[in-house]
Amino acid sequence: MTPDEFRRLGHELIDWIADYRDGIARHPVQAQVAPGEIRSRLPTAPPEQPEDMRSVLADLDRILLPGITHWQSPRFFGYFPANAPLAGVLGDLVSTGLGVIGLSWQSGPAITELEEVVTDWLRQMVGLSPAWSGVIQDTASTSTLVALLCARERATGYAMARGGLQEAGAPLLVYASAHGHSSVEKAALLAGFGRDHLRLVPSDGTYAMRAEALAAMVEEDLARGLRPCAVVATTGTTATTAIDPVGAIAEVARRHGLWLHVDAAMAGSAMILPECRPLWDGIEGADSLVLNPHKWLGVPFDSSLYYVRDPQHLVRVMSTNPSYLQSAADGQVKNLRDWGIPLGRRFRALKLWFVIREQGVEALRARLRRDIANARWLAEQVAAAPHWRLLAPVALQTLCLRHEPPGLAGEALDRHTMGWAERINRSGAAYLTPAVLDGRWMVRVSVGAEATERADVAALWETMRREAEGG
Amino acid sequence: MTPDEFRRLGHELIDWIADYRDGIARHPVQAQVAPGEIRSRLPTAPPEQPEDMRSVLADLDRILLPGITHWQSPRFFGYFPANAPLAGVLGDLVSTGLGVIGLSWQSGPAITELEEVVTDWLRQMVGLSPAWSGVIQDTASTSTLVALLCARERATGYAMARGGLQEAGAPLLVYASAHGHSSVEKAALLAGFGRDHLRLVPSDGTYAMRAEALAAMVEEDLARGLRPCAVVATTGTTATTAIDPVGAIAEVARRHGLWLHVDAAMAGSAMILPECRPLWDGIEGADSLVLNPHKWLGVPFDSSLYYVRDPQHLVRVMSTNPSYLQSAADGQVKNLRDWGIPLGRRFRALKLWFVIREQGVEALRARLRRDIANARWLAEQVAAAPHWRLLAPVALQTLCLRHEPPGLAGEALDRHTMGWAERINRSGAAYLTPAVLDGRWMVRVSVGAEATERADVAALWETMRREAEGG
Repeated sequence: MTPDEFRRLGHELIDWIADYRDGIARHPVQAQVAPGEIRSRLPTAPPEQPEDMRSVLADLDRILLPGITHWQSPRFFGYFPANAPLAGVLGDLVSTGLGVIGLSWQSGPAITELEEVVTDWLRQMVGLSPAWSGVIQDTASTSTLVALLCARERATGYAMARGGLQEAGAPLLVYASAHGHSSVEKAALLAGFGRDHLRLVPSDGTYAMRAEALAAMVEEDLARGLRPCAVVATTGTTATTAIDPVGAIAEVARRHGLWLHVDAAMAGSAMILPECRPLWDGIEGADSLVLNPHKWLGVPFDSSLYYVRDPQHLVRVMSTNPSYLQSAADGQVKNLRDWGIPLGRRFRALKLWFVIREQGVEALRARLRRDIANARWLAEQVAAAPHWRLLAPVALQTLCLRHEPPGLAGEALDRHTMGWAERINRSGAAYLTPAVLDGRWMVRVSVGAEATERADVAALWETMRREAEGG
Repeated sequence: MTPDEFRRLGHELIDWIADYRDGIARHPVQAQVAPGEIRSRLPTAPPEQPEDMRSVLADLDRILLPGITHWQSPRFFGYFPANAPLAGVLGDLVSTGLGVIGLSWQSGPAITELEEVVTDWLRQMVGLSPAWSGVIQDTASTSTLVALLCARERATGYAMARGGLQEAGAPLLVYASAHGHSSVEKAALLAGFGRDHLRLVPSDGTYAMRAEALAAMVEEDLARGLRPCAVVATTGTTATTAIDPVGAIAEVARRHGLWLHVDAAMAGSAMILPECRPLWDGIEGADSLVLNPHKWLGVPFDSSLYYVRDPQHLVRVMSTNPSYLQSAADGQVKNLRDWGIPLGRRFRALKLWFVIREQGVEALRARLRRDIANARWLAEQVAAAPHWRLLAPVALQTLCLRHEPPGLAGEALDRHTMGWAERINRSGAAYLTPAVLDGRWMVRVSVGAEATERADVAALWETMRREAEGG
């Protein structure tokens, strides 16, 4: 493709995206296809000869678009808001267009230096002290794995440089809330701790970790000759946005030398609002934290920010320094390959830079406040409606709710819940995520798509009442 | 940003990228900035108020562009070719514009199904049997880490579900060539094996692993009561593109039950040429392999393909299944979150789909053959020139060379080598990567940028002679 062909097709695709976003509310939110349906429409072998890009674009509309679940729709209330503002789309386009790769500072100095700048902007935006250094990872799953690897190596005095976890002595333990994200367990298992050494700490009535239960477990494990190594606290759990008490957990961690990692992947965005910062009071006592601008804040996926207080430790765990990556600048620059798992990196800082500059921090705060107000409004409607129940505090923008008609309980209630939620999802009118809480299915409503206004939330409430009460 | 503003600015940025690619040869290849220079020109605090996108685009030209090392330049001969053809840029633009995230099949069915299709296209293109299943990872570093985690869990009967690597018994060992990539050591260390349990297998005169040395080491370790677990073979090492004998290594692996992972990150692209496939003869005996279309083949970074023969094992090691990610389709579909570390995924298959369809496999083959011919031509010039020396066989498109004036040896020779290479890099006329081979610095010339034609290689040769011989 010549630059001139790119120009023509590029304009066309920019218009295609503009039209898509403009008309997004017209699509059924959930893809209406059956398993295997998209695949069955695609050729099983690659083309030997070039194809006309017209037919590629036609297939995009005809074959792929029906297989898209529309995360940017105003009626997307599933999982978490994963906002991809159009300014961020442009930032990412520049990154791909430049085709530059960050292997070392020298291989693209602007990649490293803009990343230093925008991660520090974000640090200031969420009110963290200058003691933190940030780096962009792909996802919170990866960030949390990096955190547990760093915890493991701190606890063992860098066993990786000797016998590894295979000869590290008495077992190391990881603690997390039973309501923590599945990625915490996955990270502990991948890092080699083993499921037997992952302790799930009980939670209180708000589904938040009980710090005194953590303290008791740690003391008991110490008495048994085991080695408490790390605790993962969550600011905004996946199911209910429960807020673990970071300050009290940090105190336990400090007392026993545990690495404290804070998973603020979702609720970290809210910390741009000063009124929300009490939710992670004590955060300065943590060793590492992850927050995902690619969620509610709104930077196109993937953009997970990992902050640490001791970057030298991170570098010591992650560094490699083969001759073909050395350069004369090495003593004076950061080489971000030593801040995570992958060697190469995209110029991901650009999309953060575009979004923050185009929006300004004030407008980002206003949007998040709008979403919190919308969630509170919906919570009031639910609380006031007969037979509807909120199952957890609405800390930010996620509601956990259930319609509980008289006489329905147990599995019959589960069938009712799954029934109305599935009917809504299948209809395409809105998209919700059912999840299990205390052993029973409920429905999560995650408010906060960029396009979602009060009218969309009101329409959702009407749809829910109709499907649940009339069902 | 409204869709209409996006339309206007998007067209402008498409033109900006077209102009950039059109005029790329006019830029000095290596960024001409000092450490900290870019950062010093950027505001240290984020803007409270929205900024005009004009000023963002102006800063892109004025501040960031001087900090770019131009990987897409026809005179980029550094590291490895990381081609980002314009069709791939468009595919990636669509991915970001859709703003859809693959958490599960249901969260974006087309993401999963197109990924199944294009990874299978690639499988066919490189001549692998249908016994392989593929998935897109970000980089080879991650793919190799996943491979060693899978090896660890197979060898221990899923110790992760019990005491992890902390109680797995006699130490597990990993074997790799001393010329393997730094990411192999990093993966072994992160996976918890420990440096003491990483065995570097000696290589032969072509820098390829000696399979009989591997066999001897494995047998000796077994005799000492240790447990050989995995071997990583490399098809195209980083320094010299050395080709480990996969077939002979697979035979050792089979005999002793080792997991064989093949790092074909770079040279895997060459396997679309039937005449190159003898280079990885025996590949069907491997358990996993990684090849990076974001290198020579030319799909914008990041696009690392990880293939396995036993996807069920991969899923068992990587799976998590919290209620909020379950759906009615689960039994009938792949959930690619269980094929790697991150939970969420971009719609990366789109860029592969765009590139392969726009180019056609025949044109991709023709381009790679052009690059091999250009590398051979340069090798002939070097071999014929007085005092120039090729230090390793030119298996594909990378040359390892040195100018050795009479009387220069040892550190003086190193200074000479670094001197002329640095002069070229600093001048911006071309970009080369110095590296250490057998304890002495040499210069790698990696041919294969999409824009590089014979004339560019001839100009490079002239520049090298001038700088080295006149220096």
